Amino acid sequence: MKDFVTLVEGSVTAARGFRAAAVSAGIRYSRDDMAMIVSDRPAAVAGTFTTNRVCAPPVKVCREHLKGGRARAIVVNAGCANACTGKLGMDNARKMARLTGEALGVPAATVFPCSTGTIGLQLPMDKIGAGIKLAAGALSADGGPRAARAIMTTDTVDKQIALEFRIDKVPVRIGGITKGAGMIEPNMATMLCFITTDAAVEPKALQACLSAAVAESFNRITVDGDMSTNDTVLLMANGAARNKRLSPGHRQWKTFVAAVNTVTKQLALKIVRDGEGATKFVTVTVEGAASDADARKASRAVANSLLVKTSWFGCDPNWGRVIDAVGYSGAEVNEALVDIAYDGISAVKGGMKAPDFSLKDLDRVLRQKNFTIAIDLRLGKGVDTVYTCDCSYDYVKINADYMT
Amino acid sequence: MKDFVTLVEGSVTAARGFRAAAVSAGIRYSRDDMAMIVSDRPAAVAGTFTTNRVCAPPVKVCREHLKGGRARAIVVNAGCANACTGKLGMDNARKMARLTGEALGVPAATVFPCSTGTIGLQLPMDKIGAGIKLAAGALSADGGPRAARAIMTTDTVDKQIALEFRIDKVPVRIGGITKGAGMIEPNMATMLCFITTDAAVEPKALQACLSAAVAESFNRITVDGDMSTNDTVLLMANGAARNKRLSPGHRQWKTFVAAVNTVTKQLALKIVRDGEGATKFVTVTVEGAASDADARKASRAVANSLLVKTSWFGCDPNWGRVIDAVGYSGAEVNEALVDIAYDGISAVKGGMKAPDFSLKDLDRVLRQKNFTIAIDLRLGKGVDTVYTCDCSYDYVKINADYMT
Repeated sequence: MKDFVTLVEGSVTAARGFRAAAVSAGIRYSRDDMAMIVSDRPAAVAGTFTTNRVCAPPVKVCREHLKGGRARAIVVNAGCANACTGKLGMDNARKMARLTGEALGVPAATVFPCSTGTIGLQLPMDKIGAGIKLAAGALSADGGPRAARAIMTTDTVDKQIALEFRIDKVPVRIGGITKGAGMIEPNMATMLCFITTDAAVEPKALQACLSAAVAESFNRITVDGDMSTNDTVLLMANGAARNKRLSPGHRQWKTFVAAVNTVTKQLALKIVRDGEGATKFVTVTVEGAASDADARKASRAVANSLLVKTSWFGCDPNWGRVIDAVGYSGAEVNEALVDIAYDGISAVKGGMKAPDFSLKDLDRVLRQKNFTIAIDLRLGKGVDTVYTCDCSYDYVKINADYMT
Repeated sequence: MKDFVTLVEGSVTAARGFRAAAVSAGIRYSRDDMAMIVSDRPAAVAGTFTTNRVCAPPVKVCREHLKGGRARAIVVNAGCANACTGKLGMDNARKMARLTGEALGVPAATVFPCSTGTIGLQLPMDKIGAGIKLAAGALSADGGPRAARAIMTTDTVDKQIALEFRIDKVPVRIGGITKGAGMIEPNMATMLCFITTDAAVEPKALQACLSAAVAESFNRITVDGDMSTNDTVLLMANGAARNKRLSPGHRQWKTFVAAVNTVTKQLALKIVRDGEGATKFVTVTVEGAASDADARKASRAVANSLLVKTSWFGCDPNWGRVIDAVGYSGAEVNEALVDIAYDGISAVKGGMKAPDFSLKDLDRVLRQKNFTIAIDLRLGKGVDTVYTCDCSYDYVKINADYMT
């Protein structure tokens, strides 16, 4: 039997034994701004978090609870990041978990609190408390899509996916939701992502699998080079599918890993496509670098260059700005060896305009909504890929107007 | 007698024995786009250049000629950077020096060629050659201001300064011109800067003095975080003032150093004030860092954060984005110790909104054209200062429209 993966409806509630709710708690928006995701049985849990030295209290609480190794619920609010909020912020993040635990009848240590929104404001705990009660009473097995909308901030579209595949001939599902549009930078994007699966998975393997998947997805996207204080990815695996517990020794471990990677990759790309003000989705690949680390420096320098991003917005095949960014990236570069191509059309050969350079052909590429810039440094075997978007008037408008 | 420094007219031709010319060579613009600066006698010369691994041929030729230690002329064109132009580009940069040497009757090795403009185009050598002849015939002792305009690209104003002071009771002058508005990032800004003085200065001391002055000026400004391929600062000292040759042992060495620093600092700040689309001039200071290197990481992260820069444009005292950037800068940070103030008005105390936080007072600061953000990490003695500007719609417009 083939390891066949199919797309299904329902995102974070597609897997058996998960329910979700979204409610309007009045924190900042007049729409749904709180969500809850609950497993009907204790789930193995894995998480990855922001590496920012300034780290929000809910992230700290999630890190603590992750050590317990079991999850029953995720509780999320949009509109207030509960970041830079000191001891009161820590108390409030813990209280958010405790109130959720009380409302659901589960230990507070199995509840993972998350917040996104403006930095520096304290959570309105009366509204949060009321929202938690409402959400706990509104949980449903088809609540995933509405939860996906409740966690949005400057996002213009909700972002969700769910897959079904078979493990030990048993149908298994995995689904997720994510939010994020600005303050997006590798390690990690400014975003929240919640993934659920009914597969039974050995907890350490689950964490290793998630960490590797995040490295290939959320850590490969950049909108504006700013890394947030609240980035969180959580994956709950509740075993409701009753498959033989998955670990690297399982015959179908790779199937599960592929499914997790598909979910994280697809959700990460949805974030870039919804990048604040973005009009173009651009893949930047670097090969031939002296090392993978050098390739990474070069790809990130290009993807985060404001001059490069604004030229994309202007549909300008300005390869000079691309090679300039490669040059200052810190990667080892021999200018006379550098090749650059746009969707396979050569722009630069040996550090100079390509002999067969066609402005007409390149213009056509740049006018597309999606294209790839491939940079070959021709020095070694280092490779890297990063996904990004252009920088438009609207990026400036959105971020000049998003008031404190 | 006091070491009194006064502002004078004339910029790069204020010092005795220097002449300059600007001509319209038709390279890209319908205005003056070539300039020449000539010393009537061999001058000591110092220079600093881009650290970009992708480095334009004229920069390479300037570096070679700098080894000779003597300068007679600088020849500059705007509109074409002669960058990423391979062997032909090197030949053309050398030819630019040779043709200028022939026109002036001086050795080619004492001529410093510079180019600024679009990357990847070859110089139109017929136009360059004709421009050189025209310029050599148009040199005048009051040609400085017109030369300042001829080297502009996206600059909206010309940038020049000249000072007079006394060394050994002899009046000495120093003056300079600069260009640059985008692709501005420390080490170095995307810019050209030419300084002349009639002081007699020992060559090694001149280079040390210029390098230190650039570190405190052009390497402390950032517009967009992009470092260019063509950055060049040249300082010619021709000794026409007939002072006793200056070196660190001279009683008035510090006077000269102060004058050089004033010229480089004032010209660097003019670049930031003319930053592409800039509406605000912002000074970012970091103190209390674990090291100066950490302070530098933090100040640059804040100054280059697109989210921070767009919030300034929106007159939004969004300190959350500032502390977020400090957090991901790579500097050692203990969030609970961080203080942030805007023009002395406290916004953040101990990593949280200050107890006396006044949105009204901060709004007032943010609505000014100039303000300072002071960040105290309270960990050690490391300090750094960087000068930058906001990011507006017009930055995007200028850079989306500046076609290849």
